[in-house]
Amino acid sequence: MAAFDLSLYLVTDRSLSLGRPLETVVEEAVRGGVTMVQLREKDASTLDFYNLAMKLKSILKSYNVPLIINDRLDIALACDAGGLHIGQSDMPYSVARKLLGKDKIIGLSVESIQDAIDANNLDVDYIGISPVFGTQTKTDTAPALGLEGIGEITRISGHPSVGIGGINLTNAQDIIQAGADGISVVSAIMSAPDPQQSARQLKEIINKSKNK
Amino acid sequence: MAAFDLSLYLVTDRSLSLGRPLETVVEEAVRGGVTMVQLREKDASTLDFYNLAMKLKSILKSYNVPLIINDRLDIALACDAGGLHIGQSDMPYSVARKLLGKDKIIGLSVESIQDAIDANNLDVDYIGISPVFGTQTKTDTAPALGLEGIGEITRISGHPSVGIGGINLTNAQDIIQAGADGISVVSAIMSAPDPQQSARQLKEIINKSKNK
Repeated sequence: MAAFDLSLYLVTDRSLSLGRPLETVVEEAVRGGVTMVQLREKDASTLDFYNLAMKLKSILKSYNVPLIINDRLDIALACDAGGLHIGQSDMPYSVARKLLGKDKIIGLSVESIQDAIDANNLDVDYIGISPVFGTQTKTDTAPALGLEGIGEITRISGHPSVGIGGINLTNAQDIIQAGADGISVVSAIMSAPDPQQSARQLKEIINKSKNK
Repeated sequence: MAAFDLSLYLVTDRSLSLGRPLETVVEEAVRGGVTMVQLREKDASTLDFYNLAMKLKSILKSYNVPLIINDRLDIALACDAGGLHIGQSDMPYSVARKLLGKDKIIGLSVESIQDAIDANNLDVDYIGISPVFGTQTKTDTAPALGLEGIGEITRISGHPSVGIGGINLTNAQDIIQAGADGISVVSAIMSAPDPQQSARQLKEIINKSKNK
């Protein structure tokens, strides 16, 4: 598998882009320092999802930033994405790995200590710890884990990790200091007036926090 | 590709099963003479879709009836289904064929004469002509094609075909006589008080119509 950098991981949400085309926001964000991009589309038709994935892949390629597809292994295969992110209600990991092969990145959402323990038995490439804080982006989430939860899970887990859920400029430092390898954001970049600048600011905070 | 029989093609809809488990209705239907089953799940999580597909596949295997997955190539791959059915808003056919391989059945929905002409350039295994009549099962459909539309499309098309949309005991014969190789039904079996009996009655009508 290609090396990847979890530091600043953007998860897309078209409904939060303030009317701007998704690909514009994503490209600005990557110019600002985003290291991974996850395309998450819960309501798009398969054709729209596929077309969007192909567009993003072509943009991200020139920045050498991997495109990760949320949930949909068919889209990941169809656009030859860098990887797949699955949650606890998605395809079983073993099935996804078998179909996607060992050269692709597969990330798994963990929503509890038990999920993190279970994930230690799987050769996933990273875990997404969620939700760290309450968030308005997703309404179907498990209870917030808080910084304590991040600390506990990163100590237990044998995998690289990102925190996700309610993370922004004011608390990004806490997530890294609690033990995560990176932060995952949605609205902090998708809804930022200047996505490039917000990404740059987040990246600086992460870099400083990691060097402490 | 294995031979397949389009005569009586059941498309599932859990919300129409009158509270009965989907797998029970499907097995009864197959005992009554259903020759193909398409699992269609528009709202299920990927995990639920996968688990249901695995269950149906195991049931259908003993009857030698192919399981076709609607839209979701990931589920078709994951459960090694007999094939995939795609609509005009799903994965492009060429991509689906490349990922699924030449040994699987791929069906395509056509909703107009033009769709049928376009499909002649693709090596799809069958076309689903829809909607023949108005239907309450799907609300996002194109205008009803009617028997005349079925006749025109089956004359133009180089592919085997099934009609779908509002087909039941009273009009099944007309669909076959208009030129289709089979009929596809949802509520006529899913909501039947006795799915096995309804399937048997439909099958008899189809067989008689074909021998005329």
